[in-house]
Order: sequence, then structure tokens, then C-alpha cells
Amino acid sequence: MTRLALPPAHVLALDVGGTKLAAGLVTPQGELLETRRVSTRIDLGPEGVTAQLLELSRSLLSSAAAVGWVGVGCGGPLDRDLGIIKNPPNLPGWIDFPLRSRLEAGLAALGLNLPVAVDNDANAAALAELTFGAGRGFQHLIYLTISTGIGGGVILNGQLYAGKDGNAGELGHLQVSVDGERCNCGGQGCLEQYASGTSIARRAQRVARQHPASQLATLEPSPERITAHTVLRALQLGDEVALAFWDETLDYLAAGVASIIHAFNPQRIVIGGGITNFGDLLFTPLRAKVQARTMPALWHGLSICRAELADHVGIYGAAAVALSRADHFSSTWLSPGEHPVQETIP
Amino acid sequence: MTRLALPPAHVLALDVGGTKLAAGLVTPQGELLETRRVSTRIDLGPEGVTAQLLELSRSLLSSAAAVGWVGVGCGGPLDRDLGIIKNPPNLPGWIDFPLRSRLEAGLAALGLNLPVAVDNDANAAALAELTFGAGRGFQHLIYLTISTGIGGGVILNGQLYAGKDGNAGELGHLQVSVDGERCNCGGQGCLEQYASGTSIARRAQRVARQHPASQLATLEPSPERITAHTVLRALQLGDEVALAFWDETLDYLAAGVASIIHAFNPQRIVIGGGITNFGDLLFTPLRAKVQARTMPALWHGLSICRAELADHVGIYGAAAVALSRADHFSSTWLSPGEHPVQETIP
Repeated sequence: MTRLALPPAHVLALDVGGTKLAAGLVTPQGELLETRRVSTRIDLGPEGVTAQLLELSRSLLSSAAAVGWVGVGCGGPLDRDLGIIKNPPNLPGWIDFPLRSRLEAGLAALGLNLPVAVDNDANAAALAELTFGAGRGFQHLIYLTISTGIGGGVILNGQLYAGKDGNAGELGHLQVSVDGERCNCGGQGCLEQYASGTSIARRAQRVARQHPASQLATLEPSPERITAHTVLRALQLGDEVALAFWDETLDYLAAGVASIIHAFNPQRIVIGGGITNFGDLLFTPLRAKVQARTMPALWHGLSICRAELADHVGIYGAAAVALSRADHFSSTWLSPGEHPVQETIP
Repeated sequence: MTRLALPPAHVLALDVGGTKLAAGLVTPQGELLETRRVSTRIDLGPEGVTAQLLELSRSLLSSAAAVGWVGVGCGGPLDRDLGIIKNPPNLPGWIDFPLRSRLEAGLAALGLNLPVAVDNDANAAALAELTFGAGRGFQHLIYLTISTGIGGGVILNGQLYAGKDGNAGELGHLQVSVDGERCNCGGQGCLEQYASGTSIARRAQRVARQHPASQLATLEPSPERITAHTVLRALQLGDEVALAFWDETLDYLAAGVASIIHAFNPQRIVIGGGITNFGDLLFTPLRAKVQARTMPALWHGLSICRAELADHVGIYGAAAVALSRADHFSSTWLSPGEHPVQETIP
């Protein structure tokens, strides 16, 4: 099949979350031209949310120049190739929903023959950091997102590595405590049970009950109100109970990161998500603990750094998903004359 | 550069160990035509051992037809591209020794202009199973070797994944016990500290001292004589202390294997090394424990199986190293007329 020399084209980026939907227009150079957000009408089910996405797309595209592709980041599990969503926890009722084909059909009904690429949030964020953020120029990059849960994205040889079913990089389920806490995944002692935002809160609540006089405990009216943010405030106050708790938390995280390094021998580990609000209280001791747990040959030349894209990682991720498959699109999706990529918006 | 259409050629395979050297002639189809072994004269240093390797090569090649490439498996760490050996524990004094160029020069002095490819034992064994053994036809394959230590080789998208420095797949240093035993690598709670042959022996000796009436203890004249083989014999006798010990050992191993699965989402995990002598006592409970610790989506379609190549894995590994780089050789090493690959042996 003939390969087209593709003109520069913008990307329509769609970030599908359980509470909000975001759409943006991104240039291949990573400039975010315009963005819109609405609350996810989760009550309308997948067809209703798809209609919301199409309406967002229509409103953005009406003001835009050439758009060549559409990228979507969405909660997984999902089939990356077919763009089928497989009942993610944050999108109840999306059971084997063919989001990609529904969006392609809906866009076609608007007169827009655009290829749509779908990937899960963590893969999308990894591609975003690779393409536009802290991972630019790296070939072997691990992205670790630590928020409510812990996810990962694996970039090897400059490309996303997805594994057999697109599930590689489930780094929250590295098992760092053989007889530790049971995990929702079925596993035991998973990193996510110690270092995710949810687990930090749960573990901190337990510690606060044991140390009711600590600042960790007294910053909130009751232990069940304690969150990861409370831990951060107590650390900033120099609370010794919080410091010991945080030190233990970082031991779990360091064991997970050291495992990642021994498995993948990466050049850089990029950490994103809410935990980055801890700033130097996270990165400085984490680097020291990881170094202490890692073979010198694998530590040498490695960097552990903060994600750069922060608030817009969803939009940038969706854009990066599309751009990462642009080659694939151009060789298999488009035939000359059939689906002109330099679509002019009506 | 012109790419040659290469004729089928045999591989000269060299397996460099601390106690023995093995050489073999292997066809691209995996037929082992001839093999020779000698004891490693470790006292002669790297130059002396290289002379041994050249003598083995000469004696094999004198009886052979067309040989196109030379593959070497050797203890790491080493530089895979340059073939430089960097002070492996089993080859004392091999400090930055340029094995590849020394072999190429030595073979050239015999009139043989042959390209030499070098990789570490674990990568070589992974390539061997991929090319000739239990990994044939798989794209995403993890090879885990459990003997004195624990090593790994990672095959992703049908190719060896080496990482930034060729050290990917140090799977013995996945950290499965956050505050566990200190490891030689600098880490803590590494899988190798629980499930390697050495660690199984050390841990079993401790258990035997606590249970002097157990068969695990009484099978040997004293606890320090207990090895992994003693554990196997006690298991076969149904000793309850040994059964509990083995169950705990498999928990550690299962946590490591589950971590591997969540990191790489492979199709198959091939386990080799001395631990495979446990047979079904290893594989049956290990599969059940790993399944219990793994997300169903990642367990689905996965197999955990025994390596096939056993005794000859060193020779086959060295051959597979050469074959895996044959494309590279043909595009970069050989120029037409300069290094005829269809070398006829004098």
C-alpha cells in the first residue's frame, strides 16, 4: 500500500474520565490550542457519553484548521487495537463497548473521516511524557502514576510496550511484601496496597489511632478524615510519627521502583499523579532509598524525576496516543483519496 | 551498504563458564553436530582461557563445513555490543577483557574471518529457548533461571530486550520482601535471597536446626550439609517440615513471578536451572500460587513451563546469540567480498 507523505495535522484529543470529559486540539509540536471540559454524564451510559464526546469534538473542530487524527485516553481494561472498553471500574456499564468505532462513525456523520486511536490512561500518560514531557529524547522510560491507585506505562526502545494483551506495566501490582496485604487484583503485598493515595490514607489512619497525640492525628477532627494531604501537612510540621510513617511508605515504594529498575534497566523513571505534591519530601529520600536497593550497574546513569505535564496529562496523553500510531494510520488506515487526512473542517 | 543474501551457515558456539568451557557446532535449524568440553584453566587468566577457546574452535572447525558466525555465552556483567567482559564473579581477573575482539583476531590468525557475538548467560539461555526450545513461536517470553543464583532473560516482540546497558531482566533482584534479607546486590528482600539454590540451602539449614527430628534434618549428618537436593528428598518422603518450608519458598517465588507478569504481560514464562529437578513439586503448586496472585486478565492465556534445553543450554544459547544478530552481522559487519561468510574450513 502506498505510504502518504502526511501534511502536518492537529490532533483531536479526548480524555474520558469517570467524572469529567476533556477535549483539546493539540499540534504535533505539543501546543495545546484549545480545550473544553464537561462533567461526565455517567448516568447516560456509554452511548450517552459518546454523544457528549462527539458534541465536544464538533464544537472544537468548528473552530479548527486541519485535524488529522483523534486520540482517546480512557480507563482500562480495554482492547487497544480495536478500541473496545472492557468494564473499567470508573465507567460502570461500559462492557465491551466499541468506543473507537462509535466515535469514528459519529465523526463520519459530521463529515469527518478521521482515524481514532484508543489507549488506557496510564499508557497515554507515558506516551505524553515521552512525546511532550519529562521523557523527551529517552528510549527506555518507565512512567509511574501514583494517585488513587498506582499505574504504569512502559516505553522500551522508544515505543510503548504493551505486552500480550496490552496490560504490561501494571506496576501497582509488583509484589513487595510476600505475605502482605491482600489486593483487589487477587495478589498479596502489591505496591498499590502501601503507596497509593488510598493506601497512604488508610495506613495513616491506622497509625494516627495508635498515636492520638501526634500531629498526624490532631490535624483532623477524627482519624477517618486523614488523607495523604494530612500526611504531607504533618511532615511539613516535622511530626515524628508522620516522618516515621512516611519513611516506611517510601521503603515500599523504593522496593517497587528497584524492582522496576532490575526488570527493565531503564534510563529514566517519571513519577506522576497526586503523590508528586509531596515534592522534595518524596523525591529526595526516594532517590536515596532506591539507590541503596539497586545494583550500581543499573543505577548508573538513571534518573528519577517528576512528570511535567500535570493537569493536562489527560489531553496530552490522548494526543500522544494518536501521534504514536500515526505511522500505523498512514500505512494501513488511509488509502490515497479515500480518507484525505488534510480534512478541512466545514 | 549492500545486504547479502546469506547462504545457510553453521554456528560455532562457545560457552564460557568458570569451571568448564564448551564448544559446539550448531546448524541454524538447531541440530547440534558436534560438541567438546574442557575444564576452564581459570589460573591462566583471560588470555589463557581465550587460547583454550581458540584451540577448541580450531579442533571443531577442522571437521566442519561452512561456518558463518560465532556466538559466545559468558558470565556477566559484560558489554554486549563490544563483547567486553567486566569482572564477572565466576571469572576473576577478567576486568574489561575484550573477548570478542580477541576471539576475532585469534580466528583471523587461523584464516577464519568470522564475526563474533557475545552475550551473558541468562540472555543467551533466553534466546536459546526462544530459538530452539520451549519458547519457539512466542513473542513475549520471560526466561527465569534458578540455580546457584537467579537470572533472567526478557524476550519482547520476538527479540531480546536488553535495556539501557544490557542489564534488563535481573529478575533475581525483584524485591519481594520489603524489609527482608540483605542481598549482595545492595538490595533488600530480593527474590534470589529466598528461592535460589544457595538460599534454599541456607534457609533449609536454619529450619532443620529448629526441627532436628524432621526428615529434612535427619537426612544429612549435620545441618550444614543440607542442600536443595536434601529438600527435594525430604519432600518426596512427605516430611511435614520440608513441605511447610517448600510452601513458603514457593510463596516468595510466586510473588516474584506475579511481579514479572504484571510488569511484562508475557505469553509464557520458561523456568530453567537446577530448580527444575523438583519437577511437578515445583510447577504444580507454583502455577496455583501465581494464579492466585495475578490479575485474571494477565493470567489468561499465560503458561509457565519448564525449559527444554537443559544440559546443552549453554551451547544452544551461544548459538542463538549469534543467530539473533545474524541480520546485524549481514548489514554491518560483512562487506561483499571482504569477509565471505561461506568460509570454507581449511
